[in-house]
Amino acid sequence: MSEPRSDFRATRRIEFADTDMGNLVHFSRFFVFMETTEHEFLHSLGATVHFEHQGRRIGWPRLEARCQYLSPARFGDELEIHLRVVRKGESSMTYDFTFRIGQRLVARGRIASVCCVLDGPDGLEAIAIPAALADRIEAAGESEQ
Amino acid sequence: MSEPRSDFRATRRIEFADTDMGNLVHFSRFFVFMETTEHEFLHSLGATVHFEHQGRRIGWPRLEARCQYLSPARFGDELEIHLRVVRKGESSMTYDFTFRIGQRLVARGRIASVCCVLDGPDGLEAIAIPAALADRIEAAGESEQ
Amino acid sequence: MSEPRSDFRATRRIEFADTDMGNLVHFSRFFVFMETTEHEFLHSLGATVHFEHQGRRIGWPRLEARCQYLSPARFGDELEIHLRVVRKGESSMTYDFTFRIGQRLVARGRIASVCCVLDGPDGLEAIAIPAALADRIEAAGESEQ
Amino acid sequence: MSEPRSDFRATRRIEFADTDMGNLVHFSRFFVFMETTEHEFLHSLGATVHFEHQGRRIGWPRLEARCQYLSPARFGDELEIHLRVVRKGESSMTYDFTFRIGQRLVARGRIASVCCVLDGPDGLEAIAIPAALADRIEAAGESEQ
Repeated sequence: MSEPRSDFRATRRIEFADTDMGNLVHFSRFFVFMETTEHEFLHSLGATVHFEHQGRRIGWPRLEARCQYLSPARFGDELEIHLRVVRKGESSMTYDFTFRIGQRLVARGRIASVCCVLDGPDGLEAIAIPAALADRIEAAGESEQ
Repeated sequence: MSEPRSDFRATRRIEFADTDMGNLVHFSRFFVFMETTEHEFLHSLGATVHFEHQGRRIGWPRLEARCQYLSPARFGDELEIHLRVVRKGESSMTYDFTFRIGQRLVARGRIASVCCVLDGPDGLEAIAIPAALADRIEAAGESEQ
Repeated sequence: MSEPRSDFRATRRIEFADTDMGNLVHFSRFFVFMETTEHEFLHSLGATVHFEHQGRRIGWPRLEARCQYLSPARFGDELEIHLRVVRKGESSMTYDFTFRIGQRLVARGRIASVCCVLDGPDGLEAIAIPAALADRIEAAGESEQ
Repeated sequence: MSEPRSDFRATRRIEFADTDMGNLVHFSRFFVFMETTEHEFLHSLGATVHFEHQGRRIGWPRLEARCQYLSPARFGDELEIHLRVVRKGESSMTYDFTFRIGQRLVARGRIASVCCVLDGPDGLEAIAIPAALADRIEAAGESEQ
């Protein structure tokens, strides 16, 4: 197991449908924002997120997700999202996220996912991250050090 | 600060719109399921979740939310959701959740919220949980011990 | 083509995550409410909505969806939803919906769907509604006349 | 009442959370895509969508929404969204939308909205579109003819 320090940055404008009657972004939406950033990161490495591999469907079910909410985000705000790879295991990945509006810290989050065959005979079945993708994640980490 | 041990149970059937192309419940939906169970719990105590108090709008923005995913949930499954109050502070509440399908443990989650004026002059402003509600939460905890 | 007049009724309480900063149910949520009612209707006939048939995945992609919004629905309101089958074609179904809170009419909607193989060689491929399900829908219509 | 022919174009990449277990974009998401495009259009005219006007909260509840689904959209696809103002009434606006992936037509939609005070004494209360915004919409229409 290595510990690359890959970074990725994205921005996202808060949409009306992200809000709730408390006039805030609904807290569950931050998990969608993390996921989409994760996918953009993988896409930036040339990786496909959900794909077929030797006739089996591969995906990244979540092991854990968490978020700390530090200050409000509202309709129209532009979130700056910073993804960092904090752990690359044989089958799993852990990402940390920070959300900012300008200089203000809005939230901190984490997602851990495991690479799985989605339609195995017993349902989900963890597998080693396909080598091509694993190599690209490694390389991304090294190129930043 | 007291530590009531209030419990609440709810069930919820997974809807098609809860799913994603991985043929699982989208992980962000568990946070909605937790929130709705929290609101049903407060409702069962006779409390209103978002309300006006002395002309100000009161709500429960989140401090933290987390979920561990232990086994798959799919379209049509009936989730049994168990809420437990793990901490009642002066302004904040922390709830733990377990999700089961039959005997199988599907997920464990936590939400911490803080009672706030939503439209204060500086935006969100934490306040003491209104006495009537605080008393009902206390009473719910005691009646179970 | 016959025109059964099947009816189905469901209720649904508005959740916090259904709302938006305008303090109303987000208009897109009515489409989820229609879909879930459609699925409960099919389930009440003993039918599975998404299923495998001769090794192919079958589902009901939408042809059209519409909704007229007549009066507000808000957090905590209980919607009474009335589904009516307005057309059963060889491959397609059309449902009308009304949404009420008590006696007040809140919205009227329509969904038309087509029974499809989801993973055909050319993608979506319309097929005749499987006989067992078609018969049950017919029977449900007749039993009401 | 005039009939400006304003146009606006946006793009949007399909996210994982937009999908359902049928491996398509969930049909309700197209309504969110329309709404966000509407807001970007209004924003491009310098208008704020939800705002305070003389101490009252103003917004655009929907009168009607509809969508025809013509071909599939899937995770990762980039939608080209074309908004067209088809009617500007004293209080209401009607927009038509087309969704394309490359040259392929994916969906056609319509949203009609009415400018309202959201917190009037009787709840929603239709008002004339504020002059500044009405003028900008007119001007946008004229500048294209």
